[in-house]
Order: sequence, then structure tokens, then C-alpha cells
Amino acid sequence: MNLKEYLAAGQKRTDQALERWLPAETAPPQTIHRAMRYSVFAGGKRIRPILCMEAARAVSDSAAGVENAACALELIHTYSLIHDDLPALDNDDLRRGRPTCHKVFGEAMAILAGDALLTLAFEVLAKADGVDDTGRARMVAELATASGTVGGMIGGQVNDLEGEGKTPDPALLESIHRAKTGALLRASLRLGAIFAGADPEQYDALSRFGEHAGLAFQIVDDLLDVEQSSEELGKTAGKDAAQHKITFPAVYGLEQSHWMAEQERLRAHAAIEIFGARAARLHELADLIVDRKT
Amino acid sequence: MNLKEYLAAGQKRTDQALERWLPAETAPPQTIHRAMRYSVFAGGKRIRPILCMEAARAVSDSAAGVENAACALELIHTYSLIHDDLPALDNDDLRRGRPTCHKVFGEAMAILAGDALLTLAFEVLAKADGVDDTGRARMVAELATASGTVGGMIGGQVNDLEGEGKTPDPALLESIHRAKTGALLRASLRLGAIFAGADPEQYDALSRFGEHAGLAFQIVDDLLDVEQSSEELGKTAGKDAAQHKITFPAVYGLEQSHWMAEQERLRAHAAIEIFGARAARLHELADLIVDRKT
Repeated sequence: MNLKEYLAAGQKRTDQALERWLPAETAPPQTIHRAMRYSVFAGGKRIRPILCMEAARAVSDSAAGVENAACALELIHTYSLIHDDLPALDNDDLRRGRPTCHKVFGEAMAILAGDALLTLAFEVLAKADGVDDTGRARMVAELATASGTVGGMIGGQVNDLEGEGKTPDPALLESIHRAKTGALLRASLRLGAIFAGADPEQYDALSRFGEHAGLAFQIVDDLLDVEQSSEELGKTAGKDAAQHKITFPAVYGLEQSHWMAEQERLRAHAAIEIFGARAARLHELADLIVDRKT
Repeated sequence: MNLKEYLAAGQKRTDQALERWLPAETAPPQTIHRAMRYSVFAGGKRIRPILCMEAARAVSDSAAGVENAACALELIHTYSLIHDDLPALDNDDLRRGRPTCHKVFGEAMAILAGDALLTLAFEVLAKADGVDDTGRARMVAELATASGTVGGMIGGQVNDLEGEGKTPDPALLESIHRAKTGALLRASLRLGAIFAGADPEQYDALSRFGEHAGLAFQIVDDLLDVEQSSEELGKTAGKDAAQHKITFPAVYGLEQSHWMAEQERLRAHAAIEIFGARAARLHELADLIVDRKT
């Protein structure tokens, strides 16, 4: 299976799990279920679930059911996009090439749909098959911490909002991005590791891989916002500069930012050496994160 | 200890647990931690945590640490109030006698503070001491379901929003309120039952108590909105009628609504007969829910 086929298979497996967990559009109250599905099934790349499933595979040959844990990450990611796009936050009309959730369903429904996806993510982990209750509780704790205010995603969003217009500063930049995208990326690897019963050395290696891949992901995201068009990205390009966000290009310039992404790529590769050939796909995914064009 | 002292002790125990779990105001990012604490420590009655702790006490003499599970309910309740008060939803300026979260911290921070409290609730349950991992996973699953879209709190909010201006209808009314407040009330009892290791008969009895007490709670809430002033309530009175909400007084009139609350009180008492004197406080709490003036 080449990389393209592999990614398509991972997306399909994720989508099938999401399909099972999301209430049907015909289930009442229908409006919110339509809103939740509209945003979840909007053609996301499913990079977090794929990283989660691949982390489990690096640890164990028997991780059947890991797609449930994996889909919880996509539910969190999607909720954060819906709330981030709201008028009170980034006020964005376009996401994955389509009108944002609140443009289609209204602000009230977008707020509640985000809340519902966030809630569902924890329900999925608490009820996931193929893992014992200790694994379930550990996954809930890890995902909640990674999504929270102290070093987690919400904390990063707050720093990002409050950093707008401030003097670009390397320390602030790193703290924003470690939290805003890095924590959830790392959690993707960790959930897979927990699900598959990783030993502490394996857990630590996958965590470090997640940190470096996560930082690379954010640097590249910042670069794409400068270097690509809205059409290519499927979301509004150039908005970081317009909103005076603290980004890698703003702090370090384009050339240095590209070089930093390369450094994180190398560190990500090095972190998972202990897995040998079992981590072949993770190596490919690290490359994909740096080399992607959207 | 009389009822007043008992309630004060339960509020204090809840607040101490909340104090331990909520990040300090000095912890960065400070703004969101201030917003979270502003809304959590706004003088709530802590009825859900107190019900949770009392359910555990009815089952077992050794439920040390149940205040952690209990405080997760208050985190969910508070997040729902913050999001409900937003301009896109109920657009309310006053809550518990003070300006609402978004009036003080802005809409963006109120949205994120609600998200953070919701997330923290699950972190608390997943990390709670005094219960094993099976209990932790069951509590997360129960709280997520009770807070979700299918028969849970968010589903009730959606039905409530969409019901505005519709013809008042008994079936719609009941479905709204069973979900909107009933599910979380019932979950309060269930979390205590799970924490304390209730057997199926005890779990079922406490669930039924929660359903009847929850319905009584909502009927009384609707009545207070009509019969009390904003000053007495500490929130905007009369807004149900102003927003053409489907309420018990709107469907059944005041007298019939009072009678229905009495029926639910009797059913709540009957549900927990198997506990005998161990449930004395739960009986008092059912009475309090019906007889309260705010």
C-alpha cells in the first residue's frame, strides 16, 4: 500500500468510527445532529486519528478497536474549529472550503454543536471497546489535560487571542504553539500508546515524537498561511498577518521557519528509533506533516 | 445538624473540592482562570453536588473523596449557564445576582471558559481518588450521556431554543425538561451511586429519585420565573414568558403546575424507601427542591 492509499484507508477507518458514534441526522433534535455532522464530515485529513492508530500499531499487533479512541481526537479537533471560527473569536466564514458551521446553522447551534462534540469525545473514550477501564480512564485524563487550559489547547487559544498585536516574541510563540496544537498532537500519539498497552519507554518515545511532529505541524501551518492562497488551503489565507498573530514567520522570517520545521522533522524521526521498522509509517507521517501543501 | 447547617457544610465541601481542581487565578493564562472562577464561585446552591454526595452516603459509610465526583457536576452545570447566557443564546446580563461571564470577560473568553469547565469535569472524574478505574470510566460515560444531545442536557437546550414561540404542548414540554435539567439531576444521584459501589437495586432507586426530583426541580424553576422578582431570584425573572418558552405554567397553568410538583415530590420520596433512615437527608432535599423560593 503506498502512502496515498494508506492515508485514504486511515481516513475511511476514522470516518466509519465517527459514523458509528455520531447520532444520526434523523435522531432528534435533528438540527444539532446535522450541525455536528456537517462539521465532522467536511473532508478533514484525519491526521490526528491516523497518528493515534499508527502509534498503537507501532506498539502492538493487536489493537483492534483503536479507531474509537482515534475518532475522539477528531471530535475534539472539530469542536475547537467550530468554536474558533465563531464571530467572537476568529470570525471566519470559510473552513475546509465550505461555509463555517455558524454561517450555516447560526451561532447558537454552532456553540452547542461544539459543546456536544467535546462531550461526545469523552463518552467515546469511556465506552471504547478493546481496552480495559484503566486504559479508558487514562485516555480520558490525557485527552482532557491536552484539551484544557494549563499547557493544553484552550490555554493556547487564550494565549493566541491575547497575543494578537503584541510584539512577536520567541518564548511566547513557543508557549502558544506547544499548547494550541502541540498538546493535542502529542495526545494523539499517547492515546494510541495507552490503548495498545505501551511500556513506559515506548510511551515516552511516542510522546516525544508527538511533540516534535506537533511543533513541525504548527510551523508549517504558519508558513502555509503566508505562502498559499485561500483556494489552495480551503480556508482564509493570510489571516494571521491580518490579525497580527504571533507566528513563526513573524518571529523568525520564512527561511528560518523552514529550517526550524526541518529540525523538528529530524527530531521526530530520531524519537522513535527504538521501534525500528514497526514505525515506518510514523516516519512517513512526520515527512508528510512537513512536506504538505494544505 | 439542622438542614441549613447541613447545606452550608455540603456547599463548603463542594467549594473546597472545586478550589483544588480549578487552576489558580495566578496560573497562566490568567484571564481564563479568572473567568472560570468568577462563574464557579458565584454563590451557587451546589444542589447537584450535595445530591451526589448524599446518594453515596445512602449507599455506603465509606465514600471518602466523593466530593470530587460531586464537583464535576457543578463544573458541567456552570459551563452550561455560561454558554446559555451568551448573546447568541439566552442573551442574559444577570446571573446569581452578578453580571454574566461574557459581560465581564467578553464573549470569546466566556465561550472558552465554558469549554474549559466542561473539559475539566471529565478530567476530575478520570483522576478522582477513592474509586477504581471501572468506577471512573462509568462516571465519565454517565456524565457525558447526561450532558449530551440524545436525551441529555444539550439536547434539551436545543429543543428549548427551537420550541420558543411554538404552541405549548405537554409532550414537547416533558421531553425538553427531562433532558434539559432532568438528565443532569439524575446523573448527580447516579455518580454518587457509582462512586459508592451501589448494587443494581440501589442504583435504580436513586435513578428514579433523580428523575422525579429533577422534574420537580424544573416545574418549580418555571413557577419561580413567573412568581418571583429578578431581585429575589438573582437572575432575570419573567424571561420565559418574554421569550415565549414552553414552560409548565404556560402549558398547565399555575395551580396545576404546583399540583404536579407535589406529585413528583411524593414519587421522589417513594423511590428511595428501600434505604430507610439512611436516606433521611435525600427526603429533606426533595422537599427543599419543591419548597425553595430561589
